[in-house]
Amino acid sequence: MLRRQFIINTIREVYELFGFQPLETPAFESWELLSAKGGGGEAVKNEIYYFKDKAERELGLRFDLTVPLARVIASNPQLPKPFKRYQIQPVWRYDNPQAGRYREFWQADADISGASGMEAEAELIAVAAEALKRLDIAKYSIRINNRKILNGIVESIGTEEPSPVFRILDKLEKAGKKETEKQLKEMLKENDVKKLMGVIGIKGSPEKVLAEAKRKFRGTKTAEEGIGELERIAQLVKSYGIKENVEIDFSLVRGLDYYTGPIFEISVQSEKSPGSVCGGGRYDRLVGLYGGAPTPCTGFSFGIDRLYNLLEAEGKLNLPATKTQVFAVNITENLRNETIRIAAELRAEGIKAETDLMGRNVRKQLDYINSAGIPFALFVGEKELKEKRFTLRDMKSGKEEKMGLENIIKKFSQSP
Amino acid sequence: MLRRQFIINTIREVYELFGFQPLETPAFESWELLSAKGGGGEAVKNEIYYFKDKAERELGLRFDLTVPLARVIASNPQLPKPFKRYQIQPVWRYDNPQAGRYREFWQADADISGASGMEAEAELIAVAAEALKRLDIAKYSIRINNRKILNGIVESIGTEEPSPVFRILDKLEKAGKKETEKQLKEMLKENDVKKLMGVIGIKGSPEKVLAEAKRKFRGTKTAEEGIGELERIAQLVKSYGIKENVEIDFSLVRGLDYYTGPIFEISVQSEKSPGSVCGGGRYDRLVGLYGGAPTPCTGFSFGIDRLYNLLEAEGKLNLPATKTQVFAVNITENLRNETIRIAAELRAEGIKAETDLMGRNVRKQLDYINSAGIPFALFVGEKELKEKRFTLRDMKSGKEEKMGLENIIKKFSQSP
Repeated sequence: MLRRQFIINTIREVYELFGFQPLETPAFESWELLSAKGGGGEAVKNEIYYFKDKAERELGLRFDLTVPLARVIASNPQLPKPFKRYQIQPVWRYDNPQAGRYREFWQADADISGASGMEAEAELIAVAAEALKRLDIAKYSIRINNRKILNGIVESIGTEEPSPVFRILDKLEKAGKKETEKQLKEMLKENDVKKLMGVIGIKGSPEKVLAEAKRKFRGTKTAEEGIGELERIAQLVKSYGIKENVEIDFSLVRGLDYYTGPIFEISVQSEKSPGSVCGGGRYDRLVGLYGGAPTPCTGFSFGIDRLYNLLEAEGKLNLPATKTQVFAVNITENLRNETIRIAAELRAEGIKAETDLMGRNVRKQLDYINSAGIPFALFVGEKELKEKRFTLRDMKSGKEEKMGLENIIKKFSQSP
Repeated sequence: MLRRQFIINTIREVYELFGFQPLETPAFESWELLSAKGGGGEAVKNEIYYFKDKAERELGLRFDLTVPLARVIASNPQLPKPFKRYQIQPVWRYDNPQAGRYREFWQADADISGASGMEAEAELIAVAAEALKRLDIAKYSIRINNRKILNGIVESIGTEEPSPVFRILDKLEKAGKKETEKQLKEMLKENDVKKLMGVIGIKGSPEKVLAEAKRKFRGTKTAEEGIGELERIAQLVKSYGIKENVEIDFSLVRGLDYYTGPIFEISVQSEKSPGSVCGGGRYDRLVGLYGGAPTPCTGFSFGIDRLYNLLEAEGKLNLPATKTQVFAVNITENLRNETIRIAAELRAEGIKAETDLMGRNVRKQLDYINSAGIPFALFVGEKELKEKRFTLRDMKSGKEEKMGLENIIKKFSQSP
């Protein structure tokens, strides 16, 4: 838990560094909202935790943090724009409906609403990169794409409802090229499948891909718009110091239906635990769908559990086992009140201190100090109290020092 | 949300100051666990969020943080003792089953398992008092009682199942003395009701009550044990500097069935929003009930929403509207990249900085800065960039200063 909290706190700090404000929403949302067609529900409908409450109302547990945010924005038109919010909370999905398992995942989202320009996208990418930097994750690639390009292609081949196509493409990596083509052929003409597969095969540095795409999509209005936006993002992120690891990848789809513009995903290159750790995109129509005034929105989400597994696998979560700095050892029962008082004095100075609660003898207290990983033991004995100098033992080296309380406080205040 | 987070962070800091470790548990628990007779469920069974999942498993959402903790302890016998954990998470209860409303509450619990002595209770009371101090709540009373005394009385009048009696007594304040007596008479002999009501009328300073209780309960073993424990608690908390506001109150019951020993509650004296803000007690049998080795446990819970309402009503939550320290104003579109870079440089020094994401002109950016409550505006213009000196405007006073980036960084680093 200390480790999970370290990850969450690191991300929270970065979100606040960029001026995002915290938001929390209740676990429940109405089933109608969660399952709305065109909203987030379509793609995960069968994975949402559904139930009726005692008043026969249809409810569900949120499956992401984007839909609740859109609901909040829709019902609070007075929020100043841009409204930059972050939200770090659990979401619930059936991982595998057959097995009947329920799963709780933690997500950490940052979203900007009210901004239609690519400045928002660039900032979000910078936020994600800064968080990864602070989590000591150096090797990753930022893959970006734009739904407008995908939409442009799907439109150009005359398909009215692009969502089913996107859902097939989203599984490309898992299903393989052959299976994907087969599934697409059930929906599209063979020639269109070929065209589509050709486009989504394009990936590489922004310079290379943009030049190629500009030629390819000349005259296709929606796609051209999408390319312009990607170009702007690629240019803006440079001001944030993000250069080498940005890649445009036309095969990036992201499963959810609500995306309308740029989308991105960050994948970590790790032998131990590779894969995507965060992703997001623009969803300019979701707030309107939930009854709010049309509001441009864009955001992304870190998967806390994925980050945890990655950092754990790479041995990057070697935190101390406890935050407690010192344990005041109770030497004899009749000095217990004095020991408690000494510990209280340390705490009054902001030093994290424990003392015995079990009526244990000194040896057993030292066993606990060791097993809990507390770095220092402070001995409070008759003689020490009289002299007002206490023995402080460094549990790792075994070295002992006699010090006055003032110096002990100074020592710990300097090393939090 | 910033305000709620301020409360949560304050409590979290205090818990960590005393060496409690964070724990989080999933929202779901099995219905069997939640509703167990003798466990927490009996008293709130009708208020638990119950549902069947798609595999027809009976589940519920946790209604407190004690039952999940007991489950964790029961299934992790290897945990070192004392196991001091804190948990700050939402719980769910029907506030009023008739209305069919669902409610989410936040609780902040601290519990000690493995310690059977009153050192644990004294520490918990000290923890709660320290948190209240840091939340600027000065006027409160700590009421303590012991289920052993109540059990002793109920036993002495020959009632086998004390829980229904406790549940009636728990409502004493709401129902009034008359109604309570009426309900008790349906269960007990008139004489026993009189005896019971006489005992629960006793309250006051530990010195006074303990002296009276010792006379009254001489020879009643369980009650005498309970009195001894209260005496020990009253003596130990003095070492933590807690003196005036401790009161023994034999009418304190606390509704839940799982308490076995000392219980306590802290009530705030406030004109605006009086009432209990935290409470807890010892539950030595709960872990055993859930299949674990018998493990003494004691803990308490802060109601975050209650604290929020109280502090809000007393005007003690006047926090800044944002944590953002400075907004880098973009003067012309062709300097956007420079403005982004300056904001990034500030953030690299840990300064919380925002910049324009909306393509707004200077006036509109200043409007946003004002409405968001950001205290400083930094102007990034052509001339400023050339001179490497930037105008910093204090939004409150309107005063402006021209400064190099280094001095700006110094200024904000000193005032977080």
